[in-house]
Amino acid sequence: MKLRAQPYDIEVGRYEVIINSADAEELGVLAGDRVQVKDKDTITAVVETTDAIVSPGKIGIYREAWESIKVVPDEVVEVLPAAKPKSVSFIRKKMDKQKLTSEEMHAIIEDIVDGNLTEVELTAFVTASYIYTMDSDEIEWMTRAMVKTGDQISFDVHPVMDHHSIGGVPGNKISLCIVPIIAAAGLLIPKTSSRAITGAGGSADLMEILCPVSFRADEIKKMTTKVGGCLVWGGATNIAPADDKIINVEYPLSIDPKSQLLASVMAKKFAVGADTMVLDIPCGNETKIPTVQEGRKLARDFMELGDRLGMKIECALTYGGTPLGRAIGGGVEVREAMVMLEKFEGPRSLLEKTIAISGMMLEMGGVAPKNEGAKMAVELVKSGKALQKFKEIIEVQGGDPKVTSDMVPIGDKVATVLSPQDGYVLEISNKRLVYMCRLAGAPHDKGVGVILHKKKGEYVKKGDGLFTLYADKEWKLDAAIKESLRNPIMMVEGMILEKIEVV
Amino acid sequence: MKLRAQPYDIEVGRYEVIINSADAEELGVLAGDRVQVKDKDTITAVVETTDAIVSPGKIGIYREAWESIKVVPDEVVEVLPAAKPKSVSFIRKKMDKQKLTSEEMHAIIEDIVDGNLTEVELTAFVTASYIYTMDSDEIEWMTRAMVKTGDQISFDVHPVMDHHSIGGVPGNKISLCIVPIIAAAGLLIPKTSSRAITGAGGSADLMEILCPVSFRADEIKKMTTKVGGCLVWGGATNIAPADDKIINVEYPLSIDPKSQLLASVMAKKFAVGADTMVLDIPCGNETKIPTVQEGRKLARDFMELGDRLGMKIECALTYGGTPLGRAIGGGVEVREAMVMLEKFEGPRSLLEKTIAISGMMLEMGGVAPKNEGAKMAVELVKSGKALQKFKEIIEVQGGDPKVTSDMVPIGDKVATVLSPQDGYVLEISNKRLVYMCRLAGAPHDKGVGVILHKKKGEYVKKGDGLFTLYADKEWKLDAAIKESLRNPIMMVEGMILEKIEVV
Repeated sequence: MKLRAQPYDIEVGRYEVIINSADAEELGVLAGDRVQVKDKDTITAVVETTDAIVSPGKIGIYREAWESIKVVPDEVVEVLPAAKPKSVSFIRKKMDKQKLTSEEMHAIIEDIVDGNLTEVELTAFVTASYIYTMDSDEIEWMTRAMVKTGDQISFDVHPVMDHHSIGGVPGNKISLCIVPIIAAAGLLIPKTSSRAITGAGGSADLMEILCPVSFRADEIKKMTTKVGGCLVWGGATNIAPADDKIINVEYPLSIDPKSQLLASVMAKKFAVGADTMVLDIPCGNETKIPTVQEGRKLARDFMELGDRLGMKIECALTYGGTPLGRAIGGGVEVREAMVMLEKFEGPRSLLEKTIAISGMMLEMGGVAPKNEGAKMAVELVKSGKALQKFKEIIEVQGGDPKVTSDMVPIGDKVATVLSPQDGYVLEISNKRLVYMCRLAGAPHDKGVGVILHKKKGEYVKKGDGLFTLYADKEWKLDAAIKESLRNPIMMVEGMILEKIEVV
Repeated sequence: MKLRAQPYDIEVGRYEVIINSADAEELGVLAGDRVQVKDKDTITAVVETTDAIVSPGKIGIYREAWESIKVVPDEVVEVLPAAKPKSVSFIRKKMDKQKLTSEEMHAIIEDIVDGNLTEVELTAFVTASYIYTMDSDEIEWMTRAMVKTGDQISFDVHPVMDHHSIGGVPGNKISLCIVPIIAAAGLLIPKTSSRAITGAGGSADLMEILCPVSFRADEIKKMTTKVGGCLVWGGATNIAPADDKIINVEYPLSIDPKSQLLASVMAKKFAVGADTMVLDIPCGNETKIPTVQEGRKLARDFMELGDRLGMKIECALTYGGTPLGRAIGGGVEVREAMVMLEKFEGPRSLLEKTIAISGMMLEMGGVAPKNEGAKMAVELVKSGKALQKFKEIIEVQGGDPKVTSDMVPIGDKVATVLSPQDGYVLEISNKRLVYMCRLAGAPHDKGVGVILHKKKGEYVKKGDGLFTLYADKEWKLDAAIKESLRNPIMMVEGMILEKIEVV
């Protein structure tokens, strides 16, 4: 069928066209089917149909397809029905609880990356994978497919170190300390990190306060080769690009399937050439992993997957039921991390976790003898070598190496919430804390952060400050503080949670 | 946040807006989240984000939302984050294998109808329902919700008859005969029917050759009250509108979950006020129900659901492994049905099935004594009363009541495929037959149809015609015939299926 091309300048994430229902009927295609659009080049695109906006005889071509087919408005193109990608039948297979082969998994991931699947098809895959889960083979194949369908780095020198935190713990700033410690010991550590999706700030959000974090894979290799390490945003690279597309479906459904967690983390590590890593699995109430038992199970799954990929993995189950350190989000969190490197000072939870994980990595990396890693990590900080390395990393990423912790900007809109009574702090809610930070503007407003004046188990007097919230904008600060009064972040002994009165 | 409104004249089937990623971050929303857009009116819309097509400070508003909020281009609107519909958490529940309540099911169906769900959310619901299936309670609740969220009809006179075929059998034209027989007996039969989605022609496609089939619910009631029956396209009404939206997701995934089949059929019958019906369940190879055992199971499920809804249902398991009658698709199929009413002549499979099902209905409707229904049906045809009623129905729907079978137009592009050898016809493939008809232009081109000269078990001589294909367009006829030579529709004894030669 010959149709007249019209540009529709909307991004849809795939090759897509829209034709009138009458033409679709004539052509024998329904919405969601594929057509070939032929001009000098030929593309295969998903069809949408309309009774209204595109008249018969015309074809609306969305941005991605328009840019690829290179026609001019009103040019006549040939449109023919085309088959669906084979991966759609593999998705059906997964929906019918059949195990996929390595080739089938690769085809699905490749079509996800290439934008060959509709939202319906992609969602069906994610939902079926969530419901049935995947076995170890499928997870390995998915990981390898995610690696192969994106950019990869390899280094001539080994080992290549990495670490990763499963997340869910507010204030978990340890990457900013661990990366320079490991690099200061002469090991390579090309660390990619995420931005917060639902948290107060990912390591990439924090690092961005000090220097740019968006780099290509080849730049990551160059920087790591030069100064030993880096701390960049994984999302700016083309490393394991399937991951973001899958997360775009998982996020609105509030699901986080384990198979996807495993594949996502390991694909990103494998793709940057890492061969030796420590995985931090925070367990506890209001984290992703509620119990130590589940943490152990997850650790085994990660280690098995690492084994299949030829990577050496050790895991650290850590306590994640309460924020790490006293500073959460933006500038205040960066300051706390830098003070640790500058003076080896700070909250014990931060110092101990950083040193413990760094120590494991130094031993695994072969630069510290067994049981001597932690001691070496402390020395690297105390000697100033880790701080020096951190500044080199900031500089190589394009930031100012002369920065000190007290120069890091924090929000100038400030409010402190006071304790309504005497008593011990019984509970700090991770979720409410993060929600308050987000209302205050995190992670977008870099000045947003919280300093906890009291932590779990500490005694507080009526009128003492419980926490101070910093923000960049007054109205966001107000909204966040109001929310924190409605749904308190800290429970002080004897506090009335809710008043139910007789009306 | 205040943004400047821009119209995006694309239909998306829901309230949707698109904003720049920077504004989305500032607002704290991600793609798939909801926002409130406030002007004089307030609407809640799904957010899409872009780095390119909408610049910061602006908001692109798609057609449905634009028409509802009634702003002018460049008007400033207030945009605030909003919560997801509650039904999204009920969908999550279903994904986690929990049973839904009646209220939760209603909320999901209502949000589907109102366009409050994104494609991701709707697909997750359909996929989870497919994987876990639904129990009898959930199916009943889904059916009731589908009825309540659309138009309904009720009649003062009872019983109100109906019948339905599960489908999958080419040439299943019986509705065109059954409706007038039942109405001629003085019973009400407000029959809605579907168009072919993947078949050669639904009853609505066939009836449309004789008269209009698109009517509102109140028109269906009026016509049925006037002449006793009608045969219209269900898709033009607002009866059980959730159904089409769900099918839009099922079709691209090639799934047809039983729960959805039950709810879809029964909601449409219940909504037109039907209280007494016969369900035709064709079983056999290449139908939707491969075995009689599965047919019985499905019959029980339908009868249980009918019971819950207060409807009297009987089921007829019929043989569907081969086409019904000799005419399949468009004009030729309508002719065969009309000849049956005009002269009580035609293929035995058509006559017997029509009379058997009509007989059951006449008995259930209380106008024929037990075991006398079939006899009465034959009399209604032989006396010309059924034909007379059919013409009244055609007239009330706006067609020409003077039409006779030989006046029904058929395609003037004709090709007959000959037998390559002597032998018995062993097999006729429903699927290949339908595929050929669709390649020839069915159901869009009304002249497309096939006459089978031989049926299963008949003897054919080399050079005898196996079937004749009629079409409206030469190039479509060619494509269809070529396909039928590559993948034969009929297997004649001794035919070589495939030649494998040494190269």
